[in-house]
Amino acid sequence: MDKKECIKVIKIGGAIINDDKVLASFLKSFATISGPKILVHGGGVLATELAAQMNVPVRMIAGRRVTDVNTLDIITMVYAGKINKNVVATLQKHKCNALGFSGADGNTIIAKKRPTKPINFGYVGDVVKVDVTAIKALISHDFTPVFCAISHNSNGQLLNTNADTIASELAIALAKNYTVELYYCFEKKGVLKTIKDEDSVISHIDINTYEKLKKDGVIFEGMLPKMENCFYALKNQVAKVCIGQAEMLFEETHTHTTLTL
Amino acid sequence: MDKKECIKVIKIGGAIINDDKVLASFLKSFATISGPKILVHGGGVLATELAAQMNVPVRMIAGRRVTDVNTLDIITMVYAGKINKNVVATLQKHKCNALGFSGADGNTIIAKKRPTKPINFGYVGDVVKVDVTAIKALISHDFTPVFCAISHNSNGQLLNTNADTIASELAIALAKNYTVELYYCFEKKGVLKTIKDEDSVISHIDINTYEKLKKDGVIFEGMLPKMENCFYALKNQVAKVCIGQAEMLFEETHTHTTLTL
Repeated sequence: MDKKECIKVIKIGGAIINDDKVLASFLKSFATISGPKILVHGGGVLATELAAQMNVPVRMIAGRRVTDVNTLDIITMVYAGKINKNVVATLQKHKCNALGFSGADGNTIIAKKRPTKPINFGYVGDVVKVDVTAIKALISHDFTPVFCAISHNSNGQLLNTNADTIASELAIALAKNYTVELYYCFEKKGVLKTIKDEDSVISHIDINTYEKLKKDGVIFEGMLPKMENCFYALKNQVAKVCIGQAEMLFEETHTHTTLTL
Repeated sequence: MDKKECIKVIKIGGAIINDDKVLASFLKSFATISGPKILVHGGGVLATELAAQMNVPVRMIAGRRVTDVNTLDIITMVYAGKINKNVVATLQKHKCNALGFSGADGNTIIAKKRPTKPINFGYVGDVVKVDVTAIKALISHDFTPVFCAISHNSNGQLLNTNADTIASELAIALAKNYTVELYYCFEKKGVLKTIKDEDSVISHIDINTYEKLKKDGVIFEGMLPKMENCFYALKNQVAKVCIGQAEMLFEETHTHTTLTL
């Protein structure tokens, strides 16, 4: 029987970050979650808006942002500055003792700059090591770490890193000491059988179903890396992985997708 | 006999922050300081530069920046984002396990928005409470907190706060548990007897000398609030306060000003 303490790693993306009212409401509810928890947030459209305001061109390849040196500055300012600190301050208002992190803080998330071939995405990092020493010390004092999606290479370079990946890597690293539940909150109620039918949520997907859904083209494009992160976490001792709307965290009956091996 | 562990609180300002090479060199040396330490950094000219780039007008009253809502966003992005995270990443490169803070993180620095009369400086905070729980937990695990000059009001509002004040308030709060040394690093070798003579450093100023220097107009303008912070710290159990160039931290014989009661 597993006696490890439970910890929830909760990732929120653009659907929540982009709307001030939705974000405020989410954070108020998040603060009520009992027990150790970690919040990981993406960046939403704010970085793109700031880039436009600063006349820094946004370059996309295959639907993904190229992070040149100016874009990295913008991302650092928006993700680690504006969003992270306002999220932390709002959680403090709701008596959740939050503490903001990038992957450089506490040397928590070390990444390697992605190879420039075949495509040069610039200052983008793939996670190579996670050190949860600072997180554990803070959680033992009832603090709630709040991560933005930035890592570093341990040699002074910050790197833009996928927020889903940050969440799964943190979950995996914490699984040695905690029973970890990983929640991906996004705009849909879960993984959909029919993309146009918001109510066609597949409530349970295991690794075999996943392979079939992938083959049949039910799961495609943006959902593929998200699902890969989920199964990667499950294969590395994360106890529970769920995908759905944030309401799944607060209402047990709210429809969502649970993934298992 | 005082058996408390020694901690150094070191504040750096524009003279170091504004020059990439000077900052890099300082951080390399800072990383070598043994024992617990905290870095507090100001913002330098980067916030003003970003405001210009974003066409946000900078409004000054009596030589001080007015922090309207757009300026607060800029300050949060530059201080807590760009500067703080790059400082942390650079310290990691030099094997100093840094962890960035704003005053909202860990509910560390609670401030009250300054009254709007006689002058409305906007989102500017005066410190009312410091909680060093997170700092102590991290220091006991050999982490080095790095503070930007932002506080919060515990009700969701970030506030722009003087970096000298952040440093003295942290030093005072830590004095209950540590023997605290507070260092203000700036561009001059110390407090000057003759403003135009860079070598006229007054090596020691006590509270009586200070009153005389103030009366005689030797200490004036920008130096006054800095000195007030110093004596405020000394009156509240901070063991040592020095003002001078950053070199005073690394070369014992480097000229500087020591303040005592």
